Amino acid sequence: DELLAAIKDRMPEKRYIHTIGVTDTAIKLAKQFGEDPKKAEVAAILHDSCKYADRNWMKQIIIEQQMDPTLLQYHHELWHGPVGAYIAKTEFNVTDEDVLNAIRFHTTGRIGQSNLEKIVYIADMIEPNRKFPGVDDLRKASEELTLHDLMIKCITHSISFLINKYQPIFPDSFECYNDLLLQKKGQVKE
Amino acid sequence: DELLAAIKDRMPEKRYIHTIGVTDTAIKLAKQFGEDPKKAEVAAILHDSCKYADRNWMKQIIIEQQMDPTLLQYHHELWHGPVGAYIAKTEFNVTDEDVLNAIRFHTTGRIGQSNLEKIVYIADMIEPNRKFPGVDDLRKASEELTLHDLMIKCITHSISFLINKYQPIFPDSFECYNDLLLQKKGQVKE
Repeated sequence: DELLAAIKDRMPEKRYIHTIGVTDTAIKLAKQFGEDPKKAEVAAILHDSCKYADRNWMKQIIIEQQMDPTLLQYHHELWHGPVGAYIAKTEFNVTDEDVLNAIRFHTTGRIGQSNLEKIVYIADMIEPNRKFPGVDDLRKASEELTLHDLMIKCITHSISFLINKYQPIFPDSFECYNDLLLQKKGQVKE
Repeated sequence: DELLAAIKDRMPEKRYIHTIGVTDTAIKLAKQFGEDPKKAEVAAILHDSCKYADRNWMKQIIIEQQMDPTLLQYHHELWHGPVGAYIAKTEFNVTDEDVLNAIRFHTTGRIGQSNLEKIVYIADMIEPNRKFPGVDDLRKASEELTLHDLMIKCITHSISFLINKYQPIFPDSFECYNDLLLQKKGQVKE
């Protein structure tokens, strides 16, 4: 695959292997949940293209392209999603807005995620090379839950992990969490 | 105390005992952290005055007084703080904005909490009648940490508790959490 060859040079071997894992998992989840496997594949291959990009260069792109300025107040680890979506569009000629959003929000989630966005977020977490306490639970859940409930489980795990380390939570992530729960439970509690 | 007598009729015995506990704890914390114990006392006595108020009446006040409309999307448990502040002002003639904010945000916290707000939030959590796993840790921390770090520990505990039950988190709470951490660590991460 041309895309795969193009991103291989941009990351260490280990991250490339992770990318293959995310791609396989995203394709599998797309088929399972009735989404387009081709879109899932493209988004997954490109999701980490800027993972090892220069921080100052990313910062400049965030400013020049008028992306969410809040990003700069948070850890640079969060920048490669939005900048990766920009590169997917400008260098790899991806025009599908859903694919771009799946790349853009793969680290944080957001309010009103599409199914494709959920799939890439989840695939990034549970692909076979990931090792963290609880990952097997999430893999098992991916075979049992709806996509919506699986996404709730995954983002809850991420936020919980950060909170237990007293790390800030990017606003899009907790908005995503609340949005998923409020969608599930109905807007107004009586 | 007149205020105490006035709120006693508005709640069951158990909640009144809790209120006394919060008041004693808030006065203690105010002295410990160099804040005005009198303000802490007034805020603590009045913090739960609307805990048992009628939901529809509270809803009406939130709408009429143009309070944060987001409140109505979340659990009614969150309404008694803002409505309690309104009642403190209109029925108990509290004019000090800091005392009113300490009542208003005692359940959720918010960005830019004052020391008094932190004290009432914390006192509400750790007063001697509270029983939940981890409360003794928080009580111990209250004798060891700065007010800022103690607040981080308390709100982290609250959010963690809610997340573990897959409950929505009111935006003010998450913003408070992030704000406390970003204040501590500096705004921009490099």
